[in-house]
Amino acid sequence: MILDSIKKTNDIKDVGAGDLDELAQEIRDFLIEKISRNGGHLGSNLGAVELTMALHLAADLPTDKIVWDVGHQSYTHKILTGRKDDFDTLRKFGGISGFPKRRESNCDAFDTGHSSTSISAGLGLVKARDLSGGDYGVYAVIGDGALTGGMAYEALNNAASLQTNYIIVLNDNNMSIAENVGGVSSYLQDIRTADAYRNFKMGLEDALNRLPGGSSVVDKLKKYKSSFKQLVVPGMFFEDMGITYLGPVDGHDIKAMVKVFGEARRYPKCVIVHVITQKGRGYAPAERHPARFHGAEPFDIETGLPAVNRTKANYTDVFSTVMLKLAERNDKVCAITAAMPDGTGLKRFSRRFPERFFDVGIAEEHAVTFAAGLAAGGFIPIVAIYSSFLQRAYDQIIHDVCIQDLPVVFAIDRAGIVGSDGETHQGIFDLSYMSTIPNMTIMAPKNKWEFSDMLKFAVKYGSPIAVRYPRGLAYDGLEEYRKPIIYGQSEMIYEESEIALLAVGSMVKVAEEVRMALKTEYGRHVTLVNARFVKPIDGEMVSYLAKQHSLIVTLEENVGTGGFGEHVREYADENHLDTDILVCCLPDDYVEHGNVNILAHEVGIDCGSIVEKIINR
Amino acid sequence: MILDSIKKTNDIKDVGAGDLDELAQEIRDFLIEKISRNGGHLGSNLGAVELTMALHLAADLPTDKIVWDVGHQSYTHKILTGRKDDFDTLRKFGGISGFPKRRESNCDAFDTGHSSTSISAGLGLVKARDLSGGDYGVYAVIGDGALTGGMAYEALNNAASLQTNYIIVLNDNNMSIAENVGGVSSYLQDIRTADAYRNFKMGLEDALNRLPGGSSVVDKLKKYKSSFKQLVVPGMFFEDMGITYLGPVDGHDIKAMVKVFGEARRYPKCVIVHVITQKGRGYAPAERHPARFHGAEPFDIETGLPAVNRTKANYTDVFSTVMLKLAERNDKVCAITAAMPDGTGLKRFSRRFPERFFDVGIAEEHAVTFAAGLAAGGFIPIVAIYSSFLQRAYDQIIHDVCIQDLPVVFAIDRAGIVGSDGETHQGIFDLSYMSTIPNMTIMAPKNKWEFSDMLKFAVKYGSPIAVRYPRGLAYDGLEEYRKPIIYGQSEMIYEESEIALLAVGSMVKVAEEVRMALKTEYGRHVTLVNARFVKPIDGEMVSYLAKQHSLIVTLEENVGTGGFGEHVREYADENHLDTDILVCCLPDDYVEHGNVNILAHEVGIDCGSIVEKIINR
Repeated sequence: MILDSIKKTNDIKDVGAGDLDELAQEIRDFLIEKISRNGGHLGSNLGAVELTMALHLAADLPTDKIVWDVGHQSYTHKILTGRKDDFDTLRKFGGISGFPKRRESNCDAFDTGHSSTSISAGLGLVKARDLSGGDYGVYAVIGDGALTGGMAYEALNNAASLQTNYIIVLNDNNMSIAENVGGVSSYLQDIRTADAYRNFKMGLEDALNRLPGGSSVVDKLKKYKSSFKQLVVPGMFFEDMGITYLGPVDGHDIKAMVKVFGEARRYPKCVIVHVITQKGRGYAPAERHPARFHGAEPFDIETGLPAVNRTKANYTDVFSTVMLKLAERNDKVCAITAAMPDGTGLKRFSRRFPERFFDVGIAEEHAVTFAAGLAAGGFIPIVAIYSSFLQRAYDQIIHDVCIQDLPVVFAIDRAGIVGSDGETHQGIFDLSYMSTIPNMTIMAPKNKWEFSDMLKFAVKYGSPIAVRYPRGLAYDGLEEYRKPIIYGQSEMIYEESEIALLAVGSMVKVAEEVRMALKTEYGRHVTLVNARFVKPIDGEMVSYLAKQHSLIVTLEENVGTGGFGEHVREYADENHLDTDILVCCLPDDYVEHGNVNILAHEVGIDCGSIVEKIINR
Repeated sequence: MILDSIKKTNDIKDVGAGDLDELAQEIRDFLIEKISRNGGHLGSNLGAVELTMALHLAADLPTDKIVWDVGHQSYTHKILTGRKDDFDTLRKFGGISGFPKRRESNCDAFDTGHSSTSISAGLGLVKARDLSGGDYGVYAVIGDGALTGGMAYEALNNAASLQTNYIIVLNDNNMSIAENVGGVSSYLQDIRTADAYRNFKMGLEDALNRLPGGSSVVDKLKKYKSSFKQLVVPGMFFEDMGITYLGPVDGHDIKAMVKVFGEARRYPKCVIVHVITQKGRGYAPAERHPARFHGAEPFDIETGLPAVNRTKANYTDVFSTVMLKLAERNDKVCAITAAMPDGTGLKRFSRRFPERFFDVGIAEEHAVTFAAGLAAGGFIPIVAIYSSFLQRAYDQIIHDVCIQDLPVVFAIDRAGIVGSDGETHQGIFDLSYMSTIPNMTIMAPKNKWEFSDMLKFAVKYGSPIAVRYPRGLAYDGLEEYRKPIIYGQSEMIYEESEIALLAVGSMVKVAEEVRMALKTEYGRHVTLVNARFVKPIDGEMVSYLAKQHSLIVTLEENVGTGGFGEHVREYADENHLDTDILVCCLPDDYVEHGNVNILAHEVGIDCGSIVEKIINR
């Protein structure tokens, strides 16, 4: 195996030119094998094998800096920088991350995870280089999907005026997670067929030169250089901004890419190298089903089918089903996703109600303000965005939705600990940042039936409202508790005395385990209340619990600052309630990648940790 | 006066075509007179007089919808929609807002204030129109400066695929608040000189047609429509995305604009009308000093000079001076602004240290991630962004700066109540949203000397850190209290017993007034502590105060949720401190426009309100 010779950074430079394609194949086999067992981002990594190899051949690592946009395509980069043997720990607690991490390797120039940041970060590295008199290369590798994110454009706009080298590698697979949407996508499509332009240019020049006097017209054309370039150069969108465009180049032709990267390094300005790749390349199931193999669970290599057959619904499935019902009953209901029709469960909605479905691209800011516009026009948009990505739209939620008190529903998926994607993807701030916003209402369901009831409530509510729910299986316990949702009211589940557990959403399940443990192991009398609303909190219930119990324990999967527990505490203090309050929440820290149960224990919000805290109180 | 006949919406349609220029002049005189007395946005409004008139002539209000980007240019729109007689109350408490407000008029289709939202909101209105079978026109009016904001591009990318009419009016004054930067700006500059293109196109066609056989080349050219258009049509950037481009048109020629708006309405797709206007048009001082007359204080019409001559420094002046010193002493110090070199006080820095100064355009997200890149490259960037605009970069602060624990300094100007700009501009959430972020440190200075000390501390600190300071005069009291800044430590100012005031930043001044009032009027013994740090809070000091006092009063210019008071309360509860805590903060509500002192009283954080709360405790 040639791959065996790849032990550390730059070992690839010792591989013979004739062996590179074979190495690419071995890397592909390695990736498929590892990801089929651990799960991870398959399609994007298979697409970027040769691109990464070419970058490593062209660049001088770790002196040169590569910034991977989103970063889920960095597996080959990890293999080529001495982390191959760590792949059995990929995305596992304590193991290597599925994203670039500066703490893992000096070849990881900048941490990523969210989309569209690479051009900004790379530009910062370029300016730092120039200010310190360095001359290393800086490469930002960005997908065509990430290019729909506004901050990529903000950064391009800045990079355009550079008088120094900066290479942006546009990894164009014509398909980010979902199908690309919008003007940029169709623009890139035009460039992809750039041969037509080239042939036309040649044809025009030939035709003109053959005409008597035509050569003077050609000269005239060339004098109007920018106009002439518009005629003959693909990538004029970039050229217009002042960025040099090179390409398109075949993203599976290592030699061609090494050549063009070398050429790109010679321009004293910002250069875009347009590389055409195929997502899922070399693994037929991933080529055919790019969305399924974007972030894959463990799968059977032979069939491409999931290794574990899920028989129970997760919250996203429930959302998917309820959305259809809501839209059937109310023709004002619309759905918005930021490039995640599959991930958010809106695919079925999009097929059934295409007119009322909007995939806006990786554009959370626009998604929210667009929703505000729809709401101002009389509709009820449901904006489905993962908790950590909705952070992008904090200002738009305040400024465009909530100041005007518009009826936008936020379906906040992946709220709480999400597991193997790690720090950048944990949804651990939403209760806090959404709570700061006047006119906002925040709910969290205890189980799948309540989730459905809350979505129905939200659609009728008439003001900004959010439902936050976790990644993973929808809890189907406590099904006998299904009182109607009433604004601001919590739900009493078991009423006893002594200790009251007041739990938010996913933590109701944990609280029920805690209740059983305290009862059976310690003989304590424990009340269980499902908070339902995080904003506003149910003050009456808190007062009532304070009278009957010596300890109120709040439970939430969110950081403490500005979270549910602090609101309960504040209410209790302001009303001089005489009870002890124990807030169980996440620490003021980032939560790394790993199994959700391990992480819950690590941060102290699993049943055992909470029981211990209560007993030691 | 023709203006006298303008009493309600559409009255302008009864003005004779020959009188429109005269009306424009009268509106200009009216605006100059009113703004010279009340303050407000002058330059942008003078530039948009004819553009607004043309829109009102072309559109059918209130059926058609106009969305004003930022909205500071909507004064003429207000005059033409029945609000002329309210202009003496402009930006005053209880009076009309300086921005569009749906609650003010059915002609204000969408509230704005922050930049680059209009295309998104307008697109939402377009989709709502189509879904409900309406056929009204939707116009988004956006400046060239606002076009540097990423979400405008996200929205353009979406609008490009429209199969229905949507008009984006690009109000191009080649100068937003500051000089425009970057690729888009230079691109628009090329279009502005589009006559060159047109002449070239005509010349080329003529030349070709004169050649024997040349006409066939012209035909061939025209067959390759998109290539041909690239040669002859300005605005190809937009055309490439699938958006029809019309223009450029003279933004002070009402007749021409009415014609082109009418033409634009006929396309079943998204149309950009490129209108060239002159900021400050018709008032020489504003034409000459666009930045000074962007958001102007009251001024003398004759000279253009401020009506009140400010003799004391405001916090922005202090920042401006300290930044020069910091950069002199440390060549790693850089400064970043998002299109606000004047507003943030970085103009002098930009002249003195042009290589280390970065104006990234209206692009807060990019600004922060770019800063993270600079920091990863070994520099110490100071990102100066107003509190309410920094909301835009919440995710980037978490994701790009704080997860990697990079030494970026956030200079958060306009924090707290800002006054006459109203809801959208109040900086009342930053203590909360910044506090949620692990690895973040937050400081707020009591006076101008401490501000300087804190900036010096921040630059040396080596991890993410924010200094938040208010709009307006820098407090120059308590100058004898200037102990060195020590991480996490508050500052005892007056130590007594009974009541402890624990105040954040600007509220130290108020707390000192409160202390005097409680002492002299009520004979109470009051301790005054300057918090200095909001994250982390000084727990030791809280414990100490709790022992010596029966009441701790926290004071902050921020909403309660997730703010300083909640942190103090949480600390006190967790440590079972036996003291009453009164949190003085802003309510869970938006704060409208008006005089800062009036607003402080309205929301209960002026001296009188706080004394009353303490006495009634």
